[in-house]
Formats: sequence, structure tokens, C-alpha cells
Amino acid sequence: MTTTLIANGTVVNATGTGAADVLIDGETIAAVLAPGSTLLGHDLAGSVDAVIDAAGKYVIPGGVDAHTHMEMPFGGTNASDTFETGTRAAAFGGTTSIVDFVVQYPEQSILEQYHLWHEKAAGNCAVDYGFHQILSDVQDASLTAMDELIAEGVTSFKLFMAYKGVFLSDDGQILRAFQKGADNGAMMMMHAENGAMIDVLVQQALAEGKTTPYFHGTTRPWQAEEEATHRAIMIADLTGAPLYVVHVSAKQAVAQIAAARDRGLNVFGETCPQYLHLSLEDQLGASSEEWGDFEGAKWVCSTPLRSKHEGHQQRMWQSLRTNDIQMVSTDHCPFCMKDQKEMGIGDFSKIPNGIGSVEHRVDLMYQGVVTGQITLPRWVELTSTTPARMFGMYGKKGVIQPGADGDVVVYDPDGHTSIGVGEGRTHHMNMDYSAWEGFEIDGHVDTVLSRGKVVVDGGRYLGARGDGRYIKRGLSQYLV
Amino acid sequence: MTTTLIANGTVVNATGTGAADVLIDGETIAAVLAPGSTLLGHDLAGSVDAVIDAAGKYVIPGGVDAHTHMEMPFGGTNASDTFETGTRAAAFGGTTSIVDFVVQYPEQSILEQYHLWHEKAAGNCAVDYGFHQILSDVQDASLTAMDELIAEGVTSFKLFMAYKGVFLSDDGQILRAFQKGADNGAMMMMHAENGAMIDVLVQQALAEGKTTPYFHGTTRPWQAEEEATHRAIMIADLTGAPLYVVHVSAKQAVAQIAAARDRGLNVFGETCPQYLHLSLEDQLGASSEEWGDFEGAKWVCSTPLRSKHEGHQQRMWQSLRTNDIQMVSTDHCPFCMKDQKEMGIGDFSKIPNGIGSVEHRVDLMYQGVVTGQITLPRWVELTSTTPARMFGMYGKKGVIQPGADGDVVVYDPDGHTSIGVGEGRTHHMNMDYSAWEGFEIDGHVDTVLSRGKVVVDGGRYLGARGDGRYIKRGLSQYLV
Amino acid sequence: MTTTLIANGTVVNATGTGAADVLIDGETIAAVLAPGSTLLGHDLAGSVDAVIDAAGKYVIPGGVDAHTHMEMPFGGTNASDTFETGTRAAAFGGTTSIVDFVVQYPEQSILEQYHLWHEKAAGNCAVDYGFHQILSDVQDASLTAMDELIAEGVTSFKLFMAYKGVFLSDDGQILRAFQKGADNGAMMMMHAENGAMIDVLVQQALAEGKTTPYFHGTTRPWQAEEEATHRAIMIADLTGAPLYVVHVSAKQAVAQIAAARDRGLNVFGETCPQYLHLSLEDQLGASSEEWGDFEGAKWVCSTPLRSKHEGHQQRMWQSLRTNDIQMVSTDHCPFCMKDQKEMGIGDFSKIPNGIGSVEHRVDLMYQGVVTGQITLPRWVELTSTTPARMFGMYGKKGVIQPGADGDVVVYDPDGHTSIGVGEGRTHHMNMDYSAWEGFEIDGHVDTVLSRGKVVVDGGRYLGARGDGRYIKRGLSQYLV
Amino acid sequence: MTTTLIANGTVVNATGTGAADVLIDGETIAAVLAPGSTLLGHDLAGSVDAVIDAAGKYVIPGGVDAHTHMEMPFGGTNASDTFETGTRAAAFGGTTSIVDFVVQYPEQSILEQYHLWHEKAAGNCAVDYGFHQILSDVQDASLTAMDELIAEGVTSFKLFMAYKGVFLSDDGQILRAFQKGADNGAMMMMHAENGAMIDVLVQQALAEGKTTPYFHGTTRPWQAEEEATHRAIMIADLTGAPLYVVHVSAKQAVAQIAAARDRGLNVFGETCPQYLHLSLEDQLGASSEEWGDFEGAKWVCSTPLRSKHEGHQQRMWQSLRTNDIQMVSTDHCPFCMKDQKEMGIGDFSKIPNGIGSVEHRVDLMYQGVVTGQITLPRWVELTSTTPARMFGMYGKKGVIQPGADGDVVVYDPDGHTSIGVGEGRTHHMNMDYSAWEGFEIDGHVDTVLSRGKVVVDGGRYLGARGDGRYIKRGLSQYLV
Repeated sequence: MTTTLIANGTVVNATGTGAADVLIDGETIAAVLAPGSTLLGHDLAGSVDAVIDAAGKYVIPGGVDAHTHMEMPFGGTNASDTFETGTRAAAFGGTTSIVDFVVQYPEQSILEQYHLWHEKAAGNCAVDYGFHQILSDVQDASLTAMDELIAEGVTSFKLFMAYKGVFLSDDGQILRAFQKGADNGAMMMMHAENGAMIDVLVQQALAEGKTTPYFHGTTRPWQAEEEATHRAIMIADLTGAPLYVVHVSAKQAVAQIAAARDRGLNVFGETCPQYLHLSLEDQLGASSEEWGDFEGAKWVCSTPLRSKHEGHQQRMWQSLRTNDIQMVSTDHCPFCMKDQKEMGIGDFSKIPNGIGSVEHRVDLMYQGVVTGQITLPRWVELTSTTPARMFGMYGKKGVIQPGADGDVVVYDPDGHTSIGVGEGRTHHMNMDYSAWEGFEIDGHVDTVLSRGKVVVDGGRYLGARGDGRYIKRGLSQYLV
Repeated sequence: MTTTLIANGTVVNATGTGAADVLIDGETIAAVLAPGSTLLGHDLAGSVDAVIDAAGKYVIPGGVDAHTHMEMPFGGTNASDTFETGTRAAAFGGTTSIVDFVVQYPEQSILEQYHLWHEKAAGNCAVDYGFHQILSDVQDASLTAMDELIAEGVTSFKLFMAYKGVFLSDDGQILRAFQKGADNGAMMMMHAENGAMIDVLVQQALAEGKTTPYFHGTTRPWQAEEEATHRAIMIADLTGAPLYVVHVSAKQAVAQIAAARDRGLNVFGETCPQYLHLSLEDQLGASSEEWGDFEGAKWVCSTPLRSKHEGHQQRMWQSLRTNDIQMVSTDHCPFCMKDQKEMGIGDFSKIPNGIGSVEHRVDLMYQGVVTGQITLPRWVELTSTTPARMFGMYGKKGVIQPGADGDVVVYDPDGHTSIGVGEGRTHHMNMDYSAWEGFEIDGHVDTVLSRGKVVVDGGRYLGARGDGRYIKRGLSQYLV
Repeated sequence: MTTTLIANGTVVNATGTGAADVLIDGETIAAVLAPGSTLLGHDLAGSVDAVIDAAGKYVIPGGVDAHTHMEMPFGGTNASDTFETGTRAAAFGGTTSIVDFVVQYPEQSILEQYHLWHEKAAGNCAVDYGFHQILSDVQDASLTAMDELIAEGVTSFKLFMAYKGVFLSDDGQILRAFQKGADNGAMMMMHAENGAMIDVLVQQALAEGKTTPYFHGTTRPWQAEEEATHRAIMIADLTGAPLYVVHVSAKQAVAQIAAARDRGLNVFGETCPQYLHLSLEDQLGASSEEWGDFEGAKWVCSTPLRSKHEGHQQRMWQSLRTNDIQMVSTDHCPFCMKDQKEMGIGDFSKIPNGIGSVEHRVDLMYQGVVTGQITLPRWVELTSTTPARMFGMYGKKGVIQPGADGDVVVYDPDGHTSIGVGEGRTHHMNMDYSAWEGFEIDGHVDTVLSRGKVVVDGGRYLGARGDGRYIKRGLSQYLV
Repeated sequence: MTTTLIANGTVVNATGTGAADVLIDGETIAAVLAPGSTLLGHDLAGSVDAVIDAAGKYVIPGGVDAHTHMEMPFGGTNASDTFETGTRAAAFGGTTSIVDFVVQYPEQSILEQYHLWHEKAAGNCAVDYGFHQILSDVQDASLTAMDELIAEGVTSFKLFMAYKGVFLSDDGQILRAFQKGADNGAMMMMHAENGAMIDVLVQQALAEGKTTPYFHGTTRPWQAEEEATHRAIMIADLTGAPLYVVHVSAKQAVAQIAAARDRGLNVFGETCPQYLHLSLEDQLGASSEEWGDFEGAKWVCSTPLRSKHEGHQQRMWQSLRTNDIQMVSTDHCPFCMKDQKEMGIGDFSKIPNGIGSVEHRVDLMYQGVVTGQITLPRWVELTSTTPARMFGMYGKKGVIQPGADGDVVVYDPDGHTSIGVGEGRTHHMNMDYSAWEGFEIDGHVDTVLSRGKVVVDGGRYLGARGDGRYIKRGLSQYLV
């Protein structure tokens, strides 16, 4: 077992910062110590296998990305990152835990799918991984499976209010699943968009010849998100289940979540970097066409990017400050332009939905610290601590404290990162483009340890396929 | 310098718990370690002067009570606890830091008062103490003093919307002080009650022969609190100053604070144990009189206790869960019944306002954990971490982490505490009655360390007068 | 043509009262005059065929009940009032116009149904009648029919968010209908309950042996109504269609409507006398059973009666004062206990839904004037003027002014009405029970004129089958 | 006594329109009749002294302007319109009733002031006039005077939260006055601006050399209005008094009023044409100076014009549609530029506050009908019916119905009015400028009758000084 001392850095936890050394013994943080590398006269620096000098740098708990879709099958293709490529990219970006979604389509066995996902991930991951379970078309068997999966460490279940025939559950099905969640303590996750409304708008747009990616956004109006968010909240209110709304992008949906929280409900919301940094107008790109061209497909995701003229971004940053939104995940769901996104040429509704960001979340959120939108502790809370608490991993993940896994990132606030697939830029995800091309980041992920092992250092990958292990999660530690 | 190892306990911080040992070297926490009392083969237990076994117990950062009034001169008398008696009682209850209010009445020099308070406290305190400054009748000199006091570590200033001729500042004066606070980063604290309205209601009640302590509450209606709270928020909105509303008791005031926070303002609220456990009807006591008897004077405080028929308590507990209220202080302002409270026999308006609770806050709030109203980490956050962050002490206070002061409490969840001056009960405050007589507490403060020194253990006081030192505070670390 | 002078009364219109005589020439109000029965020296009283002395009485525009279901086919039976019996009962109660719902079930032709309803009503009605059109399972043909029906004077269309397979349209269908409404100016009416949620709750209750009528209410919780109300509002917001929510009973639904209105949307709400006077607990009746007995079937209606412990009634009266709810209809849908309601013995879900009130609405709402809940002009506005404006009949209906139809009621505030089928009580609806048995009304409908003809006087019916004519309505006159 | 028939017009009342003739006998409307000028065979047109042909025109109740300040003494000068000139201008604009404010400054006798105002008005007015009473610095005598004045027909009392030493009452004084209002039924009117805050901001601006009229607006921020509005509402809530907030200009103040109304309180708001048509930026005018020049003094009024970049105007129009604001008055308080406004050259705080609009209110509000912001009936409701109801004049004023005063305006929607003192423009107020210069109005006041006498016709004044009589008002008829 290796022992490592991360010395002289500033440890940042969710409630504040402090100068401290971090001693990792094997896979686990053994101690957090006052700087100096000695303890009661014992020379610690001299006792360890390795010393990492973090002077002038932040020592933060490894990022926890609670929303990824590695290898996700969708519309006849698969998300382009495998568990191998995706988790390696995550490691490069300072994320040492992901929670990926086991997909179940109607008629499929939930447990079989769950085991299938284990097969996909086992032995391939660069960092630790857990699973959420998607429940499509909830039936009696779905409810039984919820209990079984909780025992397996899958304690959160995602339902959909959109994608009829694919993922959709109706409100009665949702009600039953939520009743079960209220009973067994599971976190109920919701894709909150009114699919029935959207399907009509999409068909109407296509019928009018509005086929470019830009119309992906206009046919998923904020009303569809706000409505579904409110509906999910009411079902949570009726049943008592905790509710976690994924990828919140509309300020009106935030307002619904805020109102529910003010009433004391266990209602939570996640947003994603794209809703904080990008907007609908980006899908028009530099095209001279009024409705943009196919380049916009790069940013087709659901919920969609929102118009910059409506104030969504500002409200989203604000909600991160006021804890109306509690955490930031990526909804990492990468597709290449070639052969994949291109399926939607001439029909935006056929574009695979998704943006790849698992590598950049920690960097992109740090920009909020740089611009004063959030504080340094809040950065760690949003990207690591709360995700870990929300999904039952805290103690092992999400915090620099003894007993925690040695998932630690040394982050250099004076470093710089140029994102993109272009010359001299950084991009390790398996995509032929970057949704973040051209983003210049103040800050740099210097060193990444996963359970005590240095997996990334100085831009080089030092880990090995299969380093990552399954995280058997407990119930949420964030409920009030 | 003494070294102490607190071993085998469960460390509780604001975001979660963990099994860990805490090593204190001199006055400071040197390390937090995985349990086992060894580190890299070094025998720590054998290297320290003392080992405290915390098996089965919680190890929490010492309580921070950010609202006390030791020896406060008021209406011709003084609050009955001196800095000596009050801070010793605090220590008994697991509170290792207080922030007391320097009183300035109109015409008095702020700086002189500030120095006078130092004289009162220096050499007398059992635990560490800081100061807020009261600004009465704000003038140019008050604004200048704000800058000077910040340099002295007094970074928070309390204004009053009530007590005409004593503490009151008008809205123009408040505006100017808030402008200064927005400029120099001070936290603006507010006693938010509309004194002009209350004064009329008091006079009318007395004129109608309504003289018992019960009418103290009825003449300070929630509208007076809600109104002033909203007014203070608007001045904060206009100026950009952070606002901290003291002793919030009305659910409608909470709603105003929640609304301001949803809008992204740096607006905060404190409540007190009395608003969580007691109600207006307690002032009627067991009296056979419709309007109660003078016994009710025991609970005369401002803001007043609220009626149990209006749902204030439930909303207040809820607000602690949802962070609409961020922390719990005592507003410790003790007066004896004899000679002091008795000044108001026949005229409730002459009863010195105040309840003594500095000894019981940690215990009383732990009852919320017992009843499921709040979580264990939230208990620590409300009573220690957030107070420390709010008032610029975090890092030294409010957290168990290396570099922090060795202010640590070993709390036994299986212990029991009977509060009161009665036979076999616990009460160390200098009062001839307890507002909490008869409260039976699940839990017990076993051991209290203040900067590494055991000051309370097993119900015995082991400290010395003057152990406590002045806390030179920085600006708030809780702003968003 | 008959000429009638209603002399010496107090004319009550929606904005106020005034002493005035009303002259009716043939079917139409010819003049409203200062009292005295002369004009420029012309002796009017001597010139007319009849003089009705209204001294000490209110002269009000005939009631407009915009929500009735005469002869409605439902669950294999028909609502027990025919157009003949129902409109005669309406006349007895001072209601001179009804708007009844043409029912279309899926697969049925809308236009055929519309013509069928004309056949049912033509030649049978005691007072004038118009039609709303129910659209079930909206299809392309439904949208076409909307335009056609507007030309026929049917300018309002009711959709359902409940009753799957019977009335339900999904949100995409609703969206399309609302788009059409936004385009052609139709009023979109909504039965706002989340049927999918309710269906699950009903099945669960029955499975648990909860079969009495009381559970009709508990399985339709306020969340189901609030949710659907909000959802309908969002679709209205997205499309720009005006929305009218029928039979609002939950205070939380009122709050959603109020919020939408504050935002400037054309969103309206109707409540019914049962939600103002009755409560869920009435369904327990005098039964000694915990869950009541079948007697409770008398009050099974949807939305259901709400619990008196939750404050719905008070908020509903309040909303009538503040115009958050704009009008009061009956949702008159009578079924006899024998053979009809009895279909649900042992299974509350089989009880035909409905309460019969068309006869009592004006009286029941007048009680709000008596108790001070509403003003005298507001009474008229709620029961006549706004219904007429809302549904495009104003000018002819809803007001005492020249040119209006001679639909006038002479109401005696000093009279008394005992409602019920019991001895000496009043009940003309074709039901074997009264939901209002035992209600004692301060006030009495003395004389009712329909288009200038006295149809009720002194408790006797003086009209004839077929007096009533079809009201070809225009677009709403209440939009902002 | 003259008899007049206004024939062939469209009568517009608050709930709708109708083709009708209006017969006026002496000072009173004798009848409203179906068009045709005959009744039961009697030839009415041939029986009357005069027939006014209103074909193609609107026949509306004369405007009621409930907020004027004729000859108001302020800052050493007087508002430039006397009762004679001001009411004549009102008549030109279709306003046949004003309610003017009796001014009482501290130390003055309220009753003496009241009688003084009678002296000023008696024998001078062109149209009818009533009085509100201003109460400055409320004392016991003020409360007594309230009862006395109600008996005199002065049923509304205005208090101020600004203008220290001039009009200001503190919150305790306001509370006492509101208690009295709750008791005797008086309408409590409030100038809702936080004067203490504003005074500081004004002094600071002047000290910074910000002296142009533009800074009048910036030193009265919306927070000062919102705060005071909320405070007044809380005092109304506590006491039960009805509250009428004058000259609401900030959208945030509207939100407070709307929230209070949703809670069922008798809280009302008035806005003025300037807040619907003008904005703060108008005070910069065409000046090349960053802060404008003295031309901006033309629009100095309090509350001030609000910035067009903040959405106040849109929300204000919206609030007129949704009845969050109930009526429109002018706050007519004219001062000439020369010698009067000029007092503030170099110091905006010395500019007499006020805009003259009494002549143009009906026209300016009609533009809302033209642009589709409000409906035709709502125009009448806002400018005549509700003012009459709000202040206890309905029945005589505010409606076209028999028994009402013959205050009738024939308004030509196809006419045109050019406002201003310029060549060929219309302006009868005693001011050397028009705040409305250049406004082109669709519509024209053709004929104005005051109590049956034609006082304006075809742009000529046909009345006589002293035509107007005192209106002895009753209590508000608008309470819920």
C-alpha cells in the first residue's frame, strides 16, 4: 500500500477552506493535518512513499458527476464514450466518481439491464462508478425491482415525463413509483418535460419546414419544463417522496423548485454547465441562415439550451448561490457529428440528444469562482460534496476527511486550460467535436488521485483500465 | 503545551459525520485522523498527554452563540450574568464562543463603549468572546467608527427599528449605515420590529388596564415584525449591504426573508430556542386569571413569544430545515425575577426584556435531532458552523479541522440533562429562575475543550476565570 | 305584445344599486326609469298591460347558470332532469338562462351530437338555453368543428384532464385545441383534475376495502386539482388561449388561478354552491361508521367536496370577493338515489357524479350577502352579469338595461325559502332527494320574467314548455 | 327645467355597452331607453327641449378625477390652477367631478382648513367637486375631526409617509388614524414613499452636484415606494382599515398591492396617466447633457416617473386589466415653469412637484382602448365608475342610469385631439407649458353635460363659473 502526503495546499471543503496537509494511506485518507508534515514530532513527509507539493494550490475532494450516460443506446446508436473512454476523460477533468444511468426500455427486465450495465463497466473504468436506474413505463415489476436494487446500492430511480413509447411513464405510473420511493427511501429523479406538448410542437415545426437544430430548442419551450417540474413536485407532495429534477434549464422551473423547497419539501434540482455557459442562440452559430445550419446539432440536448434574452442563465447562477439548485452534473451524453448527430440532417428530431462535458465540469464551474458568481467552498459543494450527499456516497466521497476515499484533486488556480479538439487544446472524450471548443479556462487540474493512486498528473494519464470500482451507494444523506 | 487525543468518537461536521480521532496540540487541532490512534505506525495515543475516549459519542465543534448580552445595562439595571458567570454557563452547555453586543446609547462614544466592553470582558471569561457593535441613532461618527471597529475585529453592527430614544435609528440613518456596510463589507444586523406601532399599542393596552406580562406579546403583533423585516430588506436591496435579522419569531417574517433570499439577496435570519420551544400561551402559565399573572414575566423577551395557534413554531423548524433561517443564537439576556423582572409589576412595559439560555442552546437544539426535525449535521451547522461563518470566525471556530482552535465538545446522545434551578437539575446562569424549568433533555454535554484545555468534564468546571480570549473577527464568510 | 312595468323596486346591477322602474315591451327591456311611473308627463303605469309592484324588493337580471348537464348520458344512465324539468326548476329559482354541455364521446361526431342536443332541448325548455361543446379525445375533426360551432353560437369548448377513455384528452391534444382557441377566440373550458393520478388512488382505495362514498373525496386530493389547473394554465400561457376552469374547489387551485391572473393571463375560474356551503365531512353524515355509509352518495360530485379542516371554503368565499374566482355556476348534474346513485353501492367509483342545484343557486349565493361575505352588486355579478359576459351573452343577458331581454327577477330579501323534498319545502328538480335538504334561505324569488313573460310568480309556474329559446352566443366579452 | 334626449349613441357602462337613448330631466337622468326616441308610442324626441344626436359616438358617464390639487399651497407658491380654471379644464376634458385635497399642515386646524377649502371652491367651479382631507402629523384632534368630516361628506383621509415636518406622520400616528378608519368606515389614503430614505438620497445627490431634474427620479427609487406601500398594507392588515394607495408608479408596489388583495384585504391602488405614458428618460429630454437640463422640471412629480428599462409601464397597464390597480386619477398639481418650477434651478429638490393632467385623463386613457390595452367598458370603469364607487358617489356619479346626475359625455371615437399649448393644439389649464405637448389623441370629447346642462360642446365652453356644486360623499361603495 502506497502512502502519499499532499503537502502545503489549501484544503477546500464545502463550508470553508484551511491550510492543511492530507495524508493518504493506501486507498483512504488517513489524516488531515496542520501544515508542516510533522505530527507530534513524527516526520510524516519522511515516512511516506510520496509527497505532492500543493503549495499555492487547492486540494479538493474529487469531483462527483452524478449524471452520465456512457455507451447509452439511443435511437439505434450508442453514446460515443465507453465506460473506458468516458471515465478516463472524467479523470483528466478532476472527476473521480460518476453515477451512470442503467437504461431500461419497456418490456426489458430491470434487473437484467442492471446486470448488463455492470458488465459494461466492470474492468473498464478509470474512476469509481455507481448506477442510477431508469424506470420506463412503470409496472408492478418496477416497484419490486426498486427494493431489490436498493439492496444493490442503486438508491435512485429516474422517470420520464417525455419520450412516449421509449421512456415515458404516465402520471399514475409515476405516482406509484413515488409511493414506493416514499416507502423505501429512494430518491426519485425526474426528466421533467411535458412530452405530449413537445411532440405536437415538433410535428408542427417539421410540417412547416423548420428542420434545423435551432428548432429543437424552440419546440421545447420553458412552459413544457415548468409544467412538468410542477407536476412532479405535486406528486412528490402527495406521496412524500424525495424528488430530484435533472438538468433544470428554465428559470421558471427553478422558481417552482424554490417554491416547493420554501414549503419544506425534499425537492432538489440539478443543472448542467451548458445551461450556465451556453444559450439557444449558440445553435444559430455563425450561419447566415435565419434558422442556422446543422452545426447547431453540436448543442442539441434536452432540456434544451434556453434563449439568452430571457434571463435563464443569470437566474441559474443565482440559484446556485441561494441553493435553489443544489448541484451541477453534466448529463454527459456524447455523440459524434459524423454518423451520429448527422442522423438528424433535415429533421432535428432525429438528432441524438446530448452534450459531452464530463471532462470539463470542474473547470467550467471554477469559472464561476473566477467571475465571482460563486464562492470557493460553494464550488466544491456543487461539484463534489452535495452530489455525494444527495446520492448516498458522502463520507467516502465528496469530502476531504479521514476515512474518506483518497479521491483528491490538486487544482492550480493559476493554471490555464484551453478546451477543444483544436491544435494545442485539451479534449479526451471520444467525440469528433467539442461543445466547448474555444473555452479558455482560468485554472488547471494538476494532479488527480483516485483511491490513493495518482491517475492523472501534469496532463498525463497514469492510471489503468479497470482502476475504477463500483460504488454501492446508501440512501440520500441530503434529506431534510 | 498539552496534547490531547479525542479517540473513537463520531466527528460531526456541517456536511456529515465520520468516525475519526481528533488530535489537539496546544490550543489547536493538529490533525483529524482515521480511528485507531496510530498514524503510519506512530503510536499517537501513547504520544499524547491525554486521551479522551469518545466511543459512542459525538465529537462536535464547540458551540458559537452569536447573540448574548452579558451585564447589559437596561432600564436602570444590568443583565444578571456577568461575562464571568455567563461564559462559564456557556461552557457548561458546550458553547465555547460567544459574540456579545457592545451597547452604545445616543450621545455615547462608540469607541469608548467598545473599549469599556473590553474592560468588562477581559480576564473574566471562561470561553472566547467577540463583539458586535450596537449603533444607536446613527450619525456621521457612527459611520467612521464602523471602519475603525472592523480593523479591531468587530465586523457586524446592530441597528434597531424600535426603542425610540434608546436604540432607534430612523430609516434614513439605517440607509446611511447600510451604505457604509455595503462599502466596507460589514454585516448589518437588525432588530426588526416597528417600534412606533408597538409604542401605540402598548400605551393603548396599558390605558385599558391590560398590564400583565401576557400583553407584552399581544402588543408586539406579527405585523410589526413582518413590516420591519421587509423594510430592512428593502434598504439592503437598495444599498447592497448584507443583512442579518436577529431573533426572528414570526412565520410571516420568515416568509419575507425567504423571498429575499430567493431573489438572491444576502439576507439572513437567526432564531432562538424560545421561538422553537415556547409560545405566547406559556405566559398565561397555570394562572386562573384570563390574562395570566406576573409569572409570565419570566418569558418576556423581544421579539415576543408567538401564539401556538398560528403555526409559527412549525414554520420556524421548517425554516431551519430549508435554510430560510440559517442559525440559532440565544439572545441571552438574563434578568432575575426579584428586583429585576419585578420592576414591571403592574406595567408589563417596564419588565426588563430577556430570557437566559446561553447554557442550554446546544441541548435544546439537539432535541430537534431527537424528534427528527433536523439532521445531526444540521444541528452542528446551526449551532456552530454557520455562526462561525456568518461572523467571520470560521477556520478557527465552527469546524473540526486541523488549524482550528481546539474548541471541541464530546456530546453523549445517550446521556440526559434535566434543566432547571430545582433540586437535582442543571442551571449555572446567574438567574433566580429558569425559563426552561422542567425541560428534560435527551443528550448530555460530557466534555468541553476550549482551545485545547478541558474546561468542563463530567459536570465539573475545570477552567479558570480569564481562560477566554477576545476573538478578532474577519468579514462574513457566508455571503453569496 | 305585452307591456309590463316593474315599479318601485331597487334595481341591482353589477356595479351598484338604484331605485328605478323597469319597463318591458314585449320580450325586451324598453327603458329603465326614475321611479314614479311617469316620464315627461306621460303616465307609464297607465299605459302598460301590467304593473308589478317591487317595493321593498330587488329587481335583478335573471340568473345565468353557465354549467348544467340536463339529461346527460353517463355510465349507462342519464342525468335525471330533462331539459323540461331542469329548466323549469331553474325558472323557479330565478335562473332564466342556462348553458348546457353537448356531450361528445370519442368516435362520436361532434356536429351530430350538437344537433342531437338541439333536438333534446328544442320545444322543451322553460327558459333560454345555450350550449357549450365537450370535446373528448381531440382530433383534427374536433378543431374543424370548433370553427363551425362558433358560427352556430357555441363559442366555448370543454376539455377534460380526467376520465380516461371517456372524456380525456392528453396534453398534446389539449395544446392543439388551445391553439385553435387562441386563433378563433373560443373560450377553452377545462375539467382540471389529474385523472391518471386519481385512477391509481381509486384502485388502491377499493383494493383496501375503502368503498363508501366518503372515499370519492379522499381519492381526488387537492394535489390532483391543483396540478391539473396549473398544467392547463401553462398550456394557456404557451398558446395564448383564454382558459376557464370549471368547478374549482381547492384553495390551492384558486392560488394557481390567482397567480396566473396576476401575470395578466386570461384565466378564469368558476366555483359552485356546494364548494361554498358543503364539505367532505358531510359525506360521513350521521353515520356511526368511521367511513360513513351510502347516504354520502348524495354529495358525490367531481371535483369533490373538500375537507372543512383545510380552509377551502373560506378561501373560496374570499376569492369571490377578490375576483380570483369570477362566477358561480351549479354544475347541475342530478341523479336520483334510487337506481342511479345506487349503482355505486359497494364501489364508490360507480356512483354517478353530480349534485342538483340549478334551482337554488341564486338563493344560495344570496346567503353570502346575508352573512356579509359578498356585496349585493357582487351577488348579481357572480350569478348573472359575469356569466353573461364570460360566455358572450351580455347585453341581452346579465344586465338590467334597455335592449336587454326581459329576463328579470323580483327578489324579496325579507322572504324565506325552505329547501328540500320534505314536507312544506321547495324542490322542483327531478330528483328523489335534495343535496340541500334542510337549508333555510333568507330571501325568496317572488316573480320571474323570461323575455317579458311572467313564468313564475308567488311560487306558481305560469310558463309553458318550450318558452325557452336557443341563445346563439358570441365570443367572450370578459377578456382583458 | 330643461329636458334633453341624447339619442342614437352607444351607452358605455363599466360592464358593457348597449345602444340606448338617455333622457335627462333637469339635473337628473330620468331614463335610459331603447333607441328610437319613442316609448310606448309617446314621442320623446318631440317632448324634450333638446336632442343631442350621438350616432356613432359613445355616451359615457362624466369622468371622475379623484385626485386633484387646485390652488394647492406648496413651498411658498400655489398650484397654478384655481378651482375655476382647473375645473373648467376638467370639463373640457370630459371630467365632471373632481375630488380635491384639503391641505392641513401641522399646527393648523383641520376643520378650519376644511372650511377654507369650501371658500376657495364655492361659486367658482365649473363641475361638481368633493374633498378628501389631508391629515398631517396625526394627533387626537385629527381623529376627532375624522368623525366630524365624515358627517360633512368627507369620507377619505390622506396620510403621508414622506415630507418630514410638512405632511409626514410616523407609523404610530398612521396606526391610530387607521384604527379610527377601521371604526368609522373612512377610506385611508396613503402617499406611500419612504421619506426618510429619500431625504438622505436627495442630500447625497445634491452634495455630489447632481442637481438637474433627472435626479428627482433617481433619488426616489422604487424601493422607497415598495417599502412604504408594504408598510401601509401591514398597518391596514393590523387595523382592518381600507387602504387606498395614491399615485402608484413602481411595478414592485403594484406587486405588493396585488398580494394584499389576493389575501382578501381592502387594499386599493390608483395610478395616473403619467405613469402609463411617460418615463424617467423623458426628463433627460433632448438635452446633450448626460443628466439632462432643466426642461426635465416639467415632469417632476412624486412618485416620480420610472425608468422605461424596468418594465413599470407594461406592468401598470397589465394591472389595469387585472384590477390590481383599480382606477386612474391625475394627481393634477400644476405649476408653471416660469417663477414656479424655476425655483428649482440648480437644486431639483426645490422644484414644486406636480404635473397638470386634469383636462386630458379621459383622452389619455382612451388611448389604451385604441391600442388594445384595455376594453371600452374598462375605460369607463377606470375613469368614472370605480372612482365614484371608491369614494362614495356612485348612483349619482359614475354610471348612466336613471336617478344619476346628468353628468354625461358624448365621446367621438373618430375625432382627434392634439394636446399642447402649441399652435392649433388644445390646453385649457393655467400652465405655461403642457406635460403632454405633442400627444396626438385618437378620439374627442364632443359634448359634456354637467347635471343636465351642456357645459362644453364643439370645443366651446358653455357653462358658467359656479355651476359646480359640492358633493357630499358617503362611505366607499367598493369594499369587499
